[in-house]
Amino acid sequence: MRKELQPRKIIVLGGDGFCGWPTSLHLSGLGYQIVIVDNLSRRQIDEECQMNSLTPIQPIGVRLDAWEEVSGQRIAYYPLNVAEDYEGLLEVIRQEAPEVIIHFAEQRSAPYSMKSSRLKRYTVDNNINATHNVLCAIVESGMDIHLIHLGTMGVYGYGTAGMEIPEGYLEVEVAGVTGERLRQEILYPTNPESVYHMTKSLDQLLFLYYNKNDKLRVTDLHQGIVWGTHTRETLLDERLINRFDYDGDYGTVLNRFLIQAAAGHPITVHGTGGQTRAFIHIQDTVRCVQLAVEHPPEAGDRVLIMNQMTETHRVRDLAALVSRLTGCEIAYVPNPRQEAAENEFHVKNNLFLSKGLLPITLNEGLLMEISDIAHKYAKYADSSKFPAMSTWTRQQQPGILPVAEGTL
Amino acid sequence: MRKELQPRKIIVLGGDGFCGWPTSLHLSGLGYQIVIVDNLSRRQIDEECQMNSLTPIQPIGVRLDAWEEVSGQRIAYYPLNVAEDYEGLLEVIRQEAPEVIIHFAEQRSAPYSMKSSRLKRYTVDNNINATHNVLCAIVESGMDIHLIHLGTMGVYGYGTAGMEIPEGYLEVEVAGVTGERLRQEILYPTNPESVYHMTKSLDQLLFLYYNKNDKLRVTDLHQGIVWGTHTRETLLDERLINRFDYDGDYGTVLNRFLIQAAAGHPITVHGTGGQTRAFIHIQDTVRCVQLAVEHPPEAGDRVLIMNQMTETHRVRDLAALVSRLTGCEIAYVPNPRQEAAENEFHVKNNLFLSKGLLPITLNEGLLMEISDIAHKYAKYADSSKFPAMSTWTRQQQPGILPVAEGTL
Repeated sequence: MRKELQPRKIIVLGGDGFCGWPTSLHLSGLGYQIVIVDNLSRRQIDEECQMNSLTPIQPIGVRLDAWEEVSGQRIAYYPLNVAEDYEGLLEVIRQEAPEVIIHFAEQRSAPYSMKSSRLKRYTVDNNINATHNVLCAIVESGMDIHLIHLGTMGVYGYGTAGMEIPEGYLEVEVAGVTGERLRQEILYPTNPESVYHMTKSLDQLLFLYYNKNDKLRVTDLHQGIVWGTHTRETLLDERLINRFDYDGDYGTVLNRFLIQAAAGHPITVHGTGGQTRAFIHIQDTVRCVQLAVEHPPEAGDRVLIMNQMTETHRVRDLAALVSRLTGCEIAYVPNPRQEAAENEFHVKNNLFLSKGLLPITLNEGLLMEISDIAHKYAKYADSSKFPAMSTWTRQQQPGILPVAEGTL
Repeated sequence: MRKELQPRKIIVLGGDGFCGWPTSLHLSGLGYQIVIVDNLSRRQIDEECQMNSLTPIQPIGVRLDAWEEVSGQRIAYYPLNVAEDYEGLLEVIRQEAPEVIIHFAEQRSAPYSMKSSRLKRYTVDNNINATHNVLCAIVESGMDIHLIHLGTMGVYGYGTAGMEIPEGYLEVEVAGVTGERLRQEILYPTNPESVYHMTKSLDQLLFLYYNKNDKLRVTDLHQGIVWGTHTRETLLDERLINRFDYDGDYGTVLNRFLIQAAAGHPITVHGTGGQTRAFIHIQDTVRCVQLAVEHPPEAGDRVLIMNQMTETHRVRDLAALVSRLTGCEIAYVPNPRQEAAENEFHVKNNLFLSKGLLPITLNEGLLMEISDIAHKYAKYADSSKFPAMSTWTRQQQPGILPVAEGTL
């Protein structure tokens, strides 16, 4: 019965990236008109770091043509830096008049954000100005646009022993002036573990403010660590293939384990591997974003925050699983991150489940699917890229740590 | 007994501004070696808005020469944009090797931050990059520098009915996984009322992170609305005089009331004038910063947050006080701000009182001192500058609102 409210046009900021690209295809496949805005900064970072996606991703023009061949749908594309070109962004919004903007246009690697002062500063400058420009431009356009933002579970931090992570808001009791107990619901007190995660905490305050002051409708998706590569749409043609990052900076933990195993390299676990993290398959990511598009907050609602994750695991258990599947050994190495060796992590994700998400669980069958990717392309892997050169603090020595945990 | 720990050299970022200038003189007068870093952006905003300080402030070179004549102390000066010139900032820090950096280098008017998309974006970009650059540069320098930041009471928001505002941290009780009650102390949930105030909320998260990750020693001063113009040092020579802003954007509420009265203009109060706000005299500001310099947090301490205010008043009570002193009438006008018409505001300020602050209270004698300034310079006032052209939301019409509340 909400059918007549279904948005027809969606701008995807950062629509060429690891989550943005399959999301764009998925929504296009559903009949939405998709407009991608992207400055291809992720591809430039590949050049700068002398890295490449393991999978052979095609130039965006080739991707868009292939999608048109396969689906009959044309996705529009604007090459534009959202953080720097405010007037350009506003012009695109005015011209395209979207019902929804999905914002993936941020630097998203935690280790990369810690590599140097330059990259800390780039991450803060780029991510905050990108988000703030989008918010300003929506207000200035005067249009009633639903903004969907890809956040991270990392804003909660991992020092939450004894508490369940709610979906964005925490119910607390505080003492009143006359000693009585007052009950309030507050934004969950943030505790980011890297400069990158910190920028997502800053984003939350930008949303809080623009939602309060200008009544913007905002959905913030607190996403876990993504695993997997393919979605239904990216499998339709090899030219549509998604990124697969395995390096110490951009490779997520499971992808790195798989490619290490496929390349005959030991699976490297940081510290005890007792870090518990939240995970989601890339196919579920695109379905969650679809659900967010289809269930917008109403005018006047507070920011809708949903935890976009399906299960939690300890890193050492994932390593054991991959080891069991591949016969590869596990190497425990020092942890470059400033974090607790072991943590409990209880997370609510009722909002997406109640909207109809049927999670793809991290079972061995799906691991085999990735393992296929890893085996198919392992010959292209450069094992010198497995280690991360990032260290978290000035107390640590750069260069001595063989492998980072990978980004969330 | 802390004497031997007293820092000798202090960099003051934004040392040419309304709070930065008298703070620099006060600390120089106490024997600290002061280095001012300032890009004079506040003076450029005067040009852009076709405004001027009511008092005849001198070029910074004249100011510094006059201070040397009067005190025998030379204050060093670097013209430098802290938000844009990271390498320059790092170079100054390395060269000067300060024990303390005091950070005033942010755009500090709430109405100005709301005037247009351009100024919202300038305020966010400038303030966040300035703060983040300072933090990065301290880490990169490898020095153990105590950072003191001028924040605002406005991060708490004013919707705090029934609660006393603590000094930065709030004790809360939350439910644990197994239903037990857990007690925690968290950063007070922020609720900023303008883009400017929002930037100070963002700053708080930057401090939280760098304090946690790099063990930086940070003091954040949550300052109330400043009134007054002179300090002991600025009175020593007219060339040392401090700014007096009376326009709708940069004039604080009391200063504007006084100059309106002196110019024979009705005192304009927004809405009911039921807004309760926190105040502090500029002389107490400089003493508070001195106390912050002399009582640094220890290595490993969390961010030290102190409420830098001495009393709270309702705006209509201040208007009545000024009206009684001057015989001027009061005009009630629509409120351009998105805020509650009336609010209670209970604020703790024990930390500064315990360190020896003896507040200058807002009594009629001190009002007379400002009234003297107002009368002495009223002839230079341009009454067309009293109204603010800022509106808080896209629902409001710009230009119809005669006067803004002034910045905090």
